[in-house]
Amino acid sequence: MGIGPGSLEDLTPRARRCVESADVVVGYATYVDLVRPIIKPGAKVIRGRMGGEVERARAAISAALGGSQVAVISGGDPGVYGMAGVVLEAATVDSADVCIDVIPGVTAATAAAARLGAPLSVDFAVISLSDLLTPWDLIEKRLEAASEGDFVIVLYNPQSKGRREPLAQAHSILLRHRHPETPVGIVRNAGRGGEEVEITNLERMLDSEIDMVTTVIVGNSSTLVLDGRMVTPRGYDLRSSR
Amino acid sequence: MGIGPGSLEDLTPRARRCVESADVVVGYATYVDLVRPIIKPGAKVIRGRMGGEVERARAAISAALGGSQVAVISGGDPGVYGMAGVVLEAATVDSADVCIDVIPGVTAATAAAARLGAPLSVDFAVISLSDLLTPWDLIEKRLEAASEGDFVIVLYNPQSKGRREPLAQAHSILLRHRHPETPVGIVRNAGRGGEEVEITNLERMLDSEIDMVTTVIVGNSSTLVLDGRMVTPRGYDLRSSR
Repeated sequence: MGIGPGSLEDLTPRARRCVESADVVVGYATYVDLVRPIIKPGAKVIRGRMGGEVERARAAISAALGGSQVAVISGGDPGVYGMAGVVLEAATVDSADVCIDVIPGVTAATAAAARLGAPLSVDFAVISLSDLLTPWDLIEKRLEAASEGDFVIVLYNPQSKGRREPLAQAHSILLRHRHPETPVGIVRNAGRGGEEVEITNLERMLDSEIDMVTTVIVGNSSTLVLDGRMVTPRGYDLRSSR
Repeated sequence: MGIGPGSLEDLTPRARRCVESADVVVGYATYVDLVRPIIKPGAKVIRGRMGGEVERARAAISAALGGSQVAVISGGDPGVYGMAGVVLEAATVDSADVCIDVIPGVTAATAAAARLGAPLSVDFAVISLSDLLTPWDLIEKRLEAASEGDFVIVLYNPQSKGRREPLAQAHSILLRHRHPETPVGIVRNAGRGGEEVEITNLERMLDSEIDMVTTVIVGNSSTLVLDGRMVTPRGYDLRSSR
């Protein structure tokens, strides 16, 4: 299940019920703590570490095989770089006969976009800059392709303390294709405590603080800043229809 | 605000409160009817027609200028081909001094993905096949670019009774780049009444019923069908870690 951006205000009733009724709650520590207030008293909580996804998926599956109702927690939407895929894969690889429902949530791309204005009103591409599971040359190829297609580009996992190269390389690829003044939206902790929203441009984007809890949205050739909001016009004629 | 896929079970508390507290509710008829049960008694309801987005945006803005609290309803997320952009644009063009909040919702891409399994676990591109506001050659260019980048591709507004050419053309572009047996997920009315979920492949996808309430997800080169679910592996090594 997906908790959305993090506030219980953005958690769907379907997802909330999934957590409230679970006998076992499994997830990355940060996300488990965000839903802590609604976990059933006495429920078993397995707080995992970053990188322990396979371990968590198997812990969830064995709990389910033991007859427990299990909630596997993902931030945002479980299908977007979340736990849904690895749980389904592990169940197949291990031939585990468990019933798995995927419960969607508000993903960081749209949560961040809402805080910025409406940068995703047209076709967009979602790219993770984490090269832990994806070879960098493929990420680079996707950055090139998305730039050539004039997609608005949403960057997940843009950079961590130990991993600054990918964002710098992505930046130079984007600059080769887009005007330096292309609007760029940077949202830290979208929709939860410590939220920071900034609209800058492609040339200056690396001057901003960007970490693993940041979502970066790079505008396309038609993205504008209107009254301090980042908007990619869909193409409506607002002047003649006025 | 975004109502999500359509069921009140997938409507976030923040979005729900926005509708419940509104003096005026404006939206495309289908979406307004989905939230009808939670509209405040006595609230003014403006049900618009498809294509009347600019009209609705201006109706909402003038109601807000008149002192009303207004909820502008979008299906899914308001920032993804929804009303957020046109409302922000109209407010700027008309120099309307109104306070506009964008409230995110679960968008069709992730709602449909959840019903299929986890096809969006890796980088993906979202493309609308509606050529009413976007020139077809640009849509074609984006289909080519997304194919070359091996993105999982989510197609919004794939086809209507009067508009069958775009999907047929998109299909032939995709077939030039991807194996005919590439898994394709087709979800009608994701997460609401009349939901239909089907997993087929690229070669056969046009044999399925596809209309404007359908979301189509085309797998990339690594997308699999595992125990009847469509999954794009993120790259975890599940066998050696077993």
